[in-house]
Amino acid sequence: MAGSTFGTIFKISTWGESHGKGIGVVIDGCPAGIPLSEEDIQKQLDRRKPGQNRYTTARAESDQVEILSGTFEGLTTGTPISLLVRNQDQRSRDYGTIAQLYRPGHADYTYDEKYGIRDYRGGGRSSGRETIGRVAAGAVSLKLLAEIGITVNAYVSAIGPVSIDRERMDLSYAEESPVRMPDKEATKEALAWLEQCIASKDSSGGAVECIVNRVPAGLGEPCFEKLDANLAKALMSIGAVKAVEIGDGTAVQKAKGSENNDAYLCGEDGVPYKASNHSGGMLGGISDGAPLFLRASFKPTPSIAQPQSMLGRDGKCHVESIHGRHDPIIVARAVPVVEAMTAVTLADHLLLAMASQIGYVKKIFGQKKI
Amino acid sequence: MAGSTFGTIFKISTWGESHGKGIGVVIDGCPAGIPLSEEDIQKQLDRRKPGQNRYTTARAESDQVEILSGTFEGLTTGTPISLLVRNQDQRSRDYGTIAQLYRPGHADYTYDEKYGIRDYRGGGRSSGRETIGRVAAGAVSLKLLAEIGITVNAYVSAIGPVSIDRERMDLSYAEESPVRMPDKEATKEALAWLEQCIASKDSSGGAVECIVNRVPAGLGEPCFEKLDANLAKALMSIGAVKAVEIGDGTAVQKAKGSENNDAYLCGEDGVPYKASNHSGGMLGGISDGAPLFLRASFKPTPSIAQPQSMLGRDGKCHVESIHGRHDPIIVARAVPVVEAMTAVTLADHLLLAMASQIGYVKKIFGQKKI
Amino acid sequence: MAGSTFGTIFKISTWGESHGKGIGVVIDGCPAGIPLSEEDIQKQLDRRKPGQNRYTTARAESDQVEILSGTFEGLTTGTPISLLVRNQDQRSRDYGTIAQLYRPGHADYTYDEKYGIRDYRGGGRSSGRETIGRVAAGAVSLKLLAEIGITVNAYVSAIGPVSIDRERMDLSYAEESPVRMPDKEATKEALAWLEQCIASKDSSGGAVECIVNRVPAGLGEPCFEKLDANLAKALMSIGAVKAVEIGDGTAVQKAKGSENNDAYLCGEDGVPYKASNHSGGMLGGISDGAPLFLRASFKPTPSIAQPQSMLGRDGKCHVESIHGRHDPIIVARAVPVVEAMTAVTLADHLLLAMASQIGYVKKIFGQKKI
Amino acid sequence: MAGSTFGTIFKISTWGESHGKGIGVVIDGCPAGIPLSEEDIQKQLDRRKPGQNRYTTARAESDQVEILSGTFEGLTTGTPISLLVRNQDQRSRDYGTIAQLYRPGHADYTYDEKYGIRDYRGGGRSSGRETIGRVAAGAVSLKLLAEIGITVNAYVSAIGPVSIDRERMDLSYAEESPVRMPDKEATKEALAWLEQCIASKDSSGGAVECIVNRVPAGLGEPCFEKLDANLAKALMSIGAVKAVEIGDGTAVQKAKGSENNDAYLCGEDGVPYKASNHSGGMLGGISDGAPLFLRASFKPTPSIAQPQSMLGRDGKCHVESIHGRHDPIIVARAVPVVEAMTAVTLADHLLLAMASQIGYVKKIFGQKKI
Repeated sequence: MAGSTFGTIFKISTWGESHGKGIGVVIDGCPAGIPLSEEDIQKQLDRRKPGQNRYTTARAESDQVEILSGTFEGLTTGTPISLLVRNQDQRSRDYGTIAQLYRPGHADYTYDEKYGIRDYRGGGRSSGRETIGRVAAGAVSLKLLAEIGITVNAYVSAIGPVSIDRERMDLSYAEESPVRMPDKEATKEALAWLEQCIASKDSSGGAVECIVNRVPAGLGEPCFEKLDANLAKALMSIGAVKAVEIGDGTAVQKAKGSENNDAYLCGEDGVPYKASNHSGGMLGGISDGAPLFLRASFKPTPSIAQPQSMLGRDGKCHVESIHGRHDPIIVARAVPVVEAMTAVTLADHLLLAMASQIGYVKKIFGQKKI
Repeated sequence: MAGSTFGTIFKISTWGESHGKGIGVVIDGCPAGIPLSEEDIQKQLDRRKPGQNRYTTARAESDQVEILSGTFEGLTTGTPISLLVRNQDQRSRDYGTIAQLYRPGHADYTYDEKYGIRDYRGGGRSSGRETIGRVAAGAVSLKLLAEIGITVNAYVSAIGPVSIDRERMDLSYAEESPVRMPDKEATKEALAWLEQCIASKDSSGGAVECIVNRVPAGLGEPCFEKLDANLAKALMSIGAVKAVEIGDGTAVQKAKGSENNDAYLCGEDGVPYKASNHSGGMLGGISDGAPLFLRASFKPTPSIAQPQSMLGRDGKCHVESIHGRHDPIIVARAVPVVEAMTAVTLADHLLLAMASQIGYVKKIFGQKKI
Repeated sequence: MAGSTFGTIFKISTWGESHGKGIGVVIDGCPAGIPLSEEDIQKQLDRRKPGQNRYTTARAESDQVEILSGTFEGLTTGTPISLLVRNQDQRSRDYGTIAQLYRPGHADYTYDEKYGIRDYRGGGRSSGRETIGRVAAGAVSLKLLAEIGITVNAYVSAIGPVSIDRERMDLSYAEESPVRMPDKEATKEALAWLEQCIASKDSSGGAVECIVNRVPAGLGEPCFEKLDANLAKALMSIGAVKAVEIGDGTAVQKAKGSENNDAYLCGEDGVPYKASNHSGGMLGGISDGAPLFLRASFKPTPSIAQPQSMLGRDGKCHVESIHGRHDPIIVARAVPVVEAMTAVTLADHLLLAMASQIGYVKKIFGQKKI
Repeated sequence: MAGSTFGTIFKISTWGESHGKGIGVVIDGCPAGIPLSEEDIQKQLDRRKPGQNRYTTARAESDQVEILSGTFEGLTTGTPISLLVRNQDQRSRDYGTIAQLYRPGHADYTYDEKYGIRDYRGGGRSSGRETIGRVAAGAVSLKLLAEIGITVNAYVSAIGPVSIDRERMDLSYAEESPVRMPDKEATKEALAWLEQCIASKDSSGGAVECIVNRVPAGLGEPCFEKLDANLAKALMSIGAVKAVEIGDGTAVQKAKGSENNDAYLCGEDGVPYKASNHSGGMLGGISDGAPLFLRASFKPTPSIAQPQSMLGRDGKCHVESIHGRHDPIIVARAVPVVEAMTAVTLADHLLLAMASQIGYVKKIFGQKKI
């Protein structure tokens, strides 16, 4: 069944395989009148591109995007925006040996069980290159959100045993850090840890956090299309994510109500505010006007150079090593992907929330000539 | 926007408020030919019913379900199944004082921001009573899953500082435990902890885990309708859930690839199996035939009897206490809700996966007379 | 698969069988703040009720509606509106004899082929009583449309060989006419024709037209969710409809471009207008501000008292007569159903069109406090 | 809102403008294992291509399709199939003069009202070139349907005053006829009529009929996702279609029940059959095993070379002529478009119907290893 489409009225449909002709996305339902250029999209794609440093795969791809439709004279027209990135470095010979093997931690076995056939070259559709479509769509979403001032920022908060220190945290440093950690000290420790992983032909898990500012209160549609529910789906749909947390996340297990409730206080100027933000900016699945706070846990890259016991299509087990170019860690490159999925989800919810009150309908159509 | 519908071809639509006339659900897309009685549904509703013991709200509700449509002579007919539970104990006077106040940790403020109006009686649509529709739909889903042998079992794994011990864990004890923990010792400790919470007019968070057995490989639709993505959405949409974990969950942050990969091994009889199940039964968002493993973290009940600083509709802050009947903990009653949302999600994915291969289509329509 | 849900963000889900416990609908996605009472809905249900005169079935049903959720103090709250009508007159003995027979022109055979089981009492889900859910939802939609001044009016334009005369047409007479024709002469002729049909134990086809006034320009979402496309679906989904026409409909086959194009003219006051409305108020599937004009053709009621050759579940043919209470014509009672489906479709498109321009988004969320 | 996506589990998303970089479609949800090549798709595109003869626009386009994803070694893989056709002849200078004018019968005005901006080059998204995406997706659908023997054939049944004669009708001649009429005599008359239209700088309406053979009984999902309802939507969504008829269509208005009912008869061999097919192969919105019969009425091409009164963006009226390359009639080129939309709709319904009975579920998953 169609599973490559996300969103209800702001809808993205991605396509493409690792070693096919290219990767792309169709964004349908984007409102008309938003400035959009290829540069806007390229900027985000460059952040997820391979080959950025020694901790990302060496695959040579320029990942140049082409806008095929949906804009006119620099503005979105309300019609579908089709984006195309051609694959260049397809060295499929690297992957030939594993055509007959199901690698541990990969989707090889499950694709074959589901479809009875699979494009085994570089993971096919289950490859990390699939996220190009997400990031491209995310770039368009970010432009939409920017129109009302919403900003989305993700960063790496943990790699293996190394976590950022909330006291030392400096968001302006994150993009400078080779592992996108907003903490110089933690970055240094993380790099040391990664060297160890590389030396032992191993890989490491990690976490990405995301903060969204200036979200209007009122986004999210109870009871199943809650904002947090769709953000959880959006992030969990990213390959390798195994947990999604909102606000305090798993820590709420141990909390008491008196600690977890965010009290409303009134400032000296009489303006009310929340004393804390344990809820991560959502109550009852609806944004409350405070910043959204999300966290996704990524499993270690399953492609490691150590020999592993794999299952063959022949039904027998084989101990083999995976050759090729792989990331010892993916969280750094996942940062723009997390931002993208967050932005795409918010764009849809922003548009959906316009239909909440009859007063909003009148505001738009009461003023139209008929 | 319509947010009370869940699923693509097995679709549920819930409705109802805490102090309205009743709560219900319409289940559309259930295959014909499944045995279904009111008892099948009542059994699950009774598990979430209030008043089961001292740790759940004392609200008196029998929560009797009526099947209004969709069955004939004890079997589902393929047409929509409408289920109705009338509210009985509506003592709305309990809630009168908070009509003008936004309680911390509740959705009062966000509903008013979103809709400009809210049914303030007992939380209205954001009340925990909304889960009656989920559990009723879940009961129907469980009957469907049972037809091919799938079982879904949830239990409480943590309450405040108390966690179950994996060594001592005894699933058969869970329903006996007043807090649905599959561990006698932990139950005892948890009860002691809850007494402390009650004494200090406080509440506690906790966690619910869910295991699904005999799931066929191949369920889940990449790349956005992955099985894990939809399970994350399903669980996060339950009120009070702040984190969803699949398999090892947040622990993958610290794992290495060599530890996290589930190696394929071949038994002495040559039959292949996974050496471990860190993935929680899903790879690439598709079920791999191993048991599914999920965990949801619940925040502490926001209704506590302590005085708290609340926001009034007048824009001013007021220190007030919340009176009424509330659970010091909700995880125990959330167990059937977690099972229900898991079952509803699986039912939809089971039906969706039928369209994966042209061979499946031929298997059904190649044998039909035309 | 779930087929009883209609709409994207204004979504209705109907349920119920002819001789089950009742019929109902859940309306989800209705904006908050619209005045709504049971009387608003009852008024429309009374227009489709059986037993209104000698040309409609004598089945005795009061069809009283109950609002179970979604309103508070007389206003919609934005949460799902659940409406229930209990069945009263269920004389299922009337239908017993045809449990084993597939009647010509009915859905008996196709339901059995599709589901392998069917509720044979009075047509089950395929009964005309299913339209109660549509009319109830339509009543809510009409209240929404009324908020910005849109009106929806249907009437019977043809019954068998009798058509209304466009010159004589008087919309104010339509509801007075026993066959809802806005033409006294045609009504007289139609009644004479129906007496003939009744005398010969036969039934007659007919047509219903619908005019929608004050629709804002800009509703409809190219290229598949065009307004005309969804209206066509909405009307064709009504049992017995075999053709849907927009504007000039089938007459365009014979037209030339110079005749069919609606020229834009400017009045003496300089105000532009369309010289004609062959397009029926939609161009490129988007409303153009002129009145919408639709027509649906209804086949004759398949239940006739003459003996007919039917197929048995035993695979053999049997000549039998259908007993029971049936309408010799259904167009008169179909009028509120056509209005309902038109209104439901428009309500959804009105809300969807709010997301067309970024300027609209800013108009709503640019003024919200954040 | 997203309107360029069609289908529930077999889902197509088209994109592209007349004078943009290209036109394309993403087909998601196609089962794995179906043979598919670029030739399969090109064959259908060539049938709708411009420049086939004097009665179609002279625009020079080769309309070559490229499969960008979703197949591997000649078979579909179950992942999204992305198809791209680059625009070549974009002579946008032809259209420059009408940038400021709203042409009668075109969507110029409504696009500007809806979006506040429009790509005025050659109609932009509302151009007939948009149907390339439909035809390409239709070609894939036809391959899927062919796997279980379903065939879809459309032809022109009327052009202006000329209709085919049912007695003389010869389907094998249709593709030979320059106007795709399955009747030599009618073709001759139609060509004479078109010469008249061309001479008078005018255009003509017409009709396309479609027959689908070997459809299994049981497709269609009551009550809103009926097969006829979705076919009506599919055909009405094609630009210029103003009426959709199923079976006897508008003729049912004048029919009696005794004439319109398709009696079940049993042959000498005892095999039952329908004595007629007034229903067009669907009862209660579900296929009954007889051939489907559909008809779409197309309005005359609105682009005519005669001077017409148009509306300017300045709010004033202007008498102007439309220059450029246009079809005096579109029904001939619409034939593959009607086939495509019919095929796409059926493909989705075929897959949806797999979930109708629990027995079907068991047939597939009861045999899977778990």
